[in-house]
Amino acid sequence: MSLVVIGTMAFDSLETPFGKAERIIGGAATYIGLSASRFMKDIQLVSIIGEDFPQDYLADLRTRGINTDGVELVEGEKSFFWSGRYHNDMNTRDTLDTQLNVLANFNPIVPEGGLNADFLMLGNLTPSVQLSVIKQMAKRPKLIVMDTMNFWMEIALDDLKTTIKEVDVLSINDEEARLLSGEYSLVKAAKVILAMGPRVLIIKKGEHGALLFNEKEVFFAPALPLEEVFDPTGAGDTFAGGFIGYLAATEDISFDNMKRAVIYGSAMASFCVEKFGTERLISLKQNEVENRVKQFIDLTSVEISF
Amino acid sequence: MSLVVIGTMAFDSLETPFGKAERIIGGAATYIGLSASRFMKDIQLVSIIGEDFPQDYLADLRTRGINTDGVELVEGEKSFFWSGRYHNDMNTRDTLDTQLNVLANFNPIVPEGGLNADFLMLGNLTPSVQLSVIKQMAKRPKLIVMDTMNFWMEIALDDLKTTIKEVDVLSINDEEARLLSGEYSLVKAAKVILAMGPRVLIIKKGEHGALLFNEKEVFFAPALPLEEVFDPTGAGDTFAGGFIGYLAATEDISFDNMKRAVIYGSAMASFCVEKFGTERLISLKQNEVENRVKQFIDLTSVEISF
Repeated sequence: MSLVVIGTMAFDSLETPFGKAERIIGGAATYIGLSASRFMKDIQLVSIIGEDFPQDYLADLRTRGINTDGVELVEGEKSFFWSGRYHNDMNTRDTLDTQLNVLANFNPIVPEGGLNADFLMLGNLTPSVQLSVIKQMAKRPKLIVMDTMNFWMEIALDDLKTTIKEVDVLSINDEEARLLSGEYSLVKAAKVILAMGPRVLIIKKGEHGALLFNEKEVFFAPALPLEEVFDPTGAGDTFAGGFIGYLAATEDISFDNMKRAVIYGSAMASFCVEKFGTERLISLKQNEVENRVKQFIDLTSVEISF
Repeated sequence: MSLVVIGTMAFDSLETPFGKAERIIGGAATYIGLSASRFMKDIQLVSIIGEDFPQDYLADLRTRGINTDGVELVEGEKSFFWSGRYHNDMNTRDTLDTQLNVLANFNPIVPEGGLNADFLMLGNLTPSVQLSVIKQMAKRPKLIVMDTMNFWMEIALDDLKTTIKEVDVLSINDEEARLLSGEYSLVKAAKVILAMGPRVLIIKKGEHGALLFNEKEVFFAPALPLEEVFDPTGAGDTFAGGFIGYLAATEDISFDNMKRAVIYGSAMASFCVEKFGTERLISLKQNEVENRVKQFIDLTSVEISF
């Protein structure tokens, strides 16, 4: 199965209680692509970069089965840049600087080779840009997964709702689910959001795990209790990449397989936070993923007979 | 197996986003006893009440296998009273009023019939009072479970540590674990706290579930996503009562059985929050408990083959 990923590729400068990292490579498409490539090889990234983006990083992505033909390079301009500082709890952060640069004029073009993809992952971007990608596809993908954030709920809610209506799975965090639905209870929030169009909703709760809802069922994947969360940047994108990569690799989009995909996504995210930026995803070995997934299974494993 | 429970019996006045309840019956021993009585019958409550405490409530407890010989009645005085208001998130609350009344001079005496109990549950109280109960026991119980709160960490830390050293299982919430250990990471906090004496630590995370640690293992029990949390008062005590009641009923204090006990405790707590005060625990049927436990199991149930 083939996967198209749309999202940012960027430089991030980060400050966490463990240290600082200056201008390291980040961006939703980068994390999603790297994470999905642990499960499958036919991945098309659709993104935009400036001439400051290192070509050897793109070359490394290509060795991982990630096609970068859809990554537009704008000469004479700079890549998207974000800078932030995490608080001690690692769940909250302050944005110190945002420089849109090339992202200000991003009109993504899905390359020929991606137009018939079965899986489409819409990383967080302007909702109308996400929608334009859906419309470019030659046929409706079997599964469209969408990530978004509170920012769009505040400034582009109508566009956001239009895009949400077209996707199969929406992946947001708990605060975003509350904001989008107007409900504090996540169970009630899920009902409201599923009525907006998607047949599946993922609510990410960071260190508290993730909930997977469809109209009738709910599944909960724990987060692994970690000694240290070194840098949470990209954890949500890494989760999404693992989720859709696992589904594409197994060619099964049933709710039961989505449960497994949430565990794999959570396992990938648990690696992401162990180092700054994409460092840990780059060095990750396949057997490490399987061992981590086993830890997730053991964590909630209990036998009760009635 | 027999169980001794020490803790408060009280009146609570509560305000939640769903309404108000004036002077309803609460207190740690009440919730613990009611919850444990779903699993076993030989329970001794050790507590203190004023003459305002309704005798028919005590009589009802006795019909549930809860012996109240250890509940001291002080003529001419009033029962402990607490009043609080919950915020919209239901995880935080303001205390509006605390009247110690009879609790100011509580010197608990374990009745003859409880001195050889195999299970001892220390509900939240002054740590030195909890310790005095351990010392009264004719033989060391097979299992001592202790609940406490941030208040004692702030004003009686040395006494608290002395008591913690004597117990098998400590049950506290995530903020208390961080306060007691000085560590933000719950994994690190657990190591610090287990080094203080108990061989098992339960960290309650409210709507985010509960973690069970021993020196080598960690287990996570999810909380059931609920449409509405009506009144969280007593949820932690109800959890503890279900935990120790299940262990006493099954006569098995292995870590594997504690995993099951955490699920049963969580299930009991999920009922507690559905109504004001002890109302839901009073009306609870046995088959409802089993069905709820099945929901907990289903919530994280996933099959992955490697």
